[in-house]
Amino acid sequence: MAQSIELISVGTELLIGKTLNTNAQWIAKRITSLGLSVRRVTVVGDDINKISTAVQEALERKLSFLITTGGLGPTFDDKTLEGIAKALERQLETNERALEMVKEKYRKYVEEGRMEKAELTPPRVKMAKLPEGAKPLPNPVGTAPGVITTCEGATIISLPGVPSEMKAIFEESVVPLLKQVAGDVTFFETSIVATGVMESEMAPLIDRVMHDNPYVYIKSHPRGEERTPRLEFHLSTTAENSNVAKNRVSKALIQLSEMIQLKGGKISLLPAKS
Amino acid sequence: MAQSIELISVGTELLIGKTLNTNAQWIAKRITSLGLSVRRVTVVGDDINKISTAVQEALERKLSFLITTGGLGPTFDDKTLEGIAKALERQLETNERALEMVKEKYRKYVEEGRMEKAELTPPRVKMAKLPEGAKPLPNPVGTAPGVITTCEGATIISLPGVPSEMKAIFEESVVPLLKQVAGDVTFFETSIVATGVMESEMAPLIDRVMHDNPYVYIKSHPRGEERTPRLEFHLSTTAENSNVAKNRVSKALIQLSEMIQLKGGKISLLPAKS
Repeated sequence: MAQSIELISVGTELLIGKTLNTNAQWIAKRITSLGLSVRRVTVVGDDINKISTAVQEALERKLSFLITTGGLGPTFDDKTLEGIAKALERQLETNERALEMVKEKYRKYVEEGRMEKAELTPPRVKMAKLPEGAKPLPNPVGTAPGVITTCEGATIISLPGVPSEMKAIFEESVVPLLKQVAGDVTFFETSIVATGVMESEMAPLIDRVMHDNPYVYIKSHPRGEERTPRLEFHLSTTAENSNVAKNRVSKALIQLSEMIQLKGGKISLLPAKS
Repeated sequence: MAQSIELISVGTELLIGKTLNTNAQWIAKRITSLGLSVRRVTVVGDDINKISTAVQEALERKLSFLITTGGLGPTFDDKTLEGIAKALERQLETNERALEMVKEKYRKYVEEGRMEKAELTPPRVKMAKLPEGAKPLPNPVGTAPGVITTCEGATIISLPGVPSEMKAIFEESVVPLLKQVAGDVTFFETSIVATGVMESEMAPLIDRVMHDNPYVYIKSHPRGEERTPRLEFHLSTTAENSNVAKNRVSKALIQLSEMIQLKGGKISLLPAKS
């Protein structure tokens, strides 16, 4: 069964170009490596209405998983959970388990001498206010818990924007969920670089190779410097196991390489990734 | 008058995490530096329907400019213009000026000895097939022209995905358009780093500074290593001229710095950007 996954990256810093959206790339790569795929990424600022609209639109497109990053912290402009609550027409309420997680973190910080006392100020309690019915996901490296909210068959997973926290919660709590739905599917990709052929002459040949290798996706990326045409071909597939995936990609790679050489191009192999 | 700008990044390589979306960051930063702002970024794969849906949704949200990157090249999976044509219910047609631009490029490649003959093969003609009523924008460093399409008050600008080509067309043809609507507005930003204070204790103080400095936007970013709390505060504003902008940010910066020091934090200044 095809799983539809979308990402929503929340943060005005992304919209003013201060921050590069490495979170979306990291998650997309990780999801692809599990044999699943990301259908769309949406970036919005720290605004309840903008977040809520983006969540509603994603849910209307019907999906299995919606993963948000950013906007879970203690400051006034951390508005992701408010936005999700608004989209689902639910209230935010203090979640006891989440509050316990937050308390525990501050107790630990005091023990470690990082702060003097662990008062539960409103900004700290804020991190435990989740949409009704949501559950917290433990944050092994930071304070704000991740959050999982379900709504009519869709699972909304909210992760912090700090990359180390996002990755830790993703690996610990999200990967197991995704593996359940992905089953034994794996993804395999490799790239070759050709010099001396132009993208416009390769276009019909790529069509041919993809026609002959229907499960392999091939994309060309011009990497040319000013005067030397240089093209990277990226081949990828998803299959029930890694042998099948590798065989499929190898077959397409051989056919493509022959065509490049017939056109007078030279090939260099990039290291395979799996 | 507030200008609404959205970006659509087209490319399956972005959705599988192969490529980091540096184009969106570069454009967002450049637009912000002109005193305008990006409202949303949407990333979709190389699929006519996905592109067309994203374009329609953006137009329904009412905007002044929609800027797309990627999907203008000669290969089968360069589908951005088809997607836009579908969204606007227009046909694609060979644009004479665009075709002349493409021909001229191949003539030049032959002259420079980069290729033997400049045949106008179907993949090359494809780059000159624009939605009805659209106009090509010259590409000073590559082959595929940029494209400008207008629809009910919205201007859709399509740029190639190759960063050097995207940037060259943006600077030459898009910046002048944006400057017209931006007028003399400028953007100013700076950052400071504080050690020894936690985000959760700073949250209410940031509220205070933003309340006292209504035109300044302040955002905190935790940059802490495992044991030392370290926070970056990013202050930015848009104003009618750069003096006003700098004064506004300075005033907020002084108030914020005093509060950090009252809480026992230490401050280091990051180099100012303008």
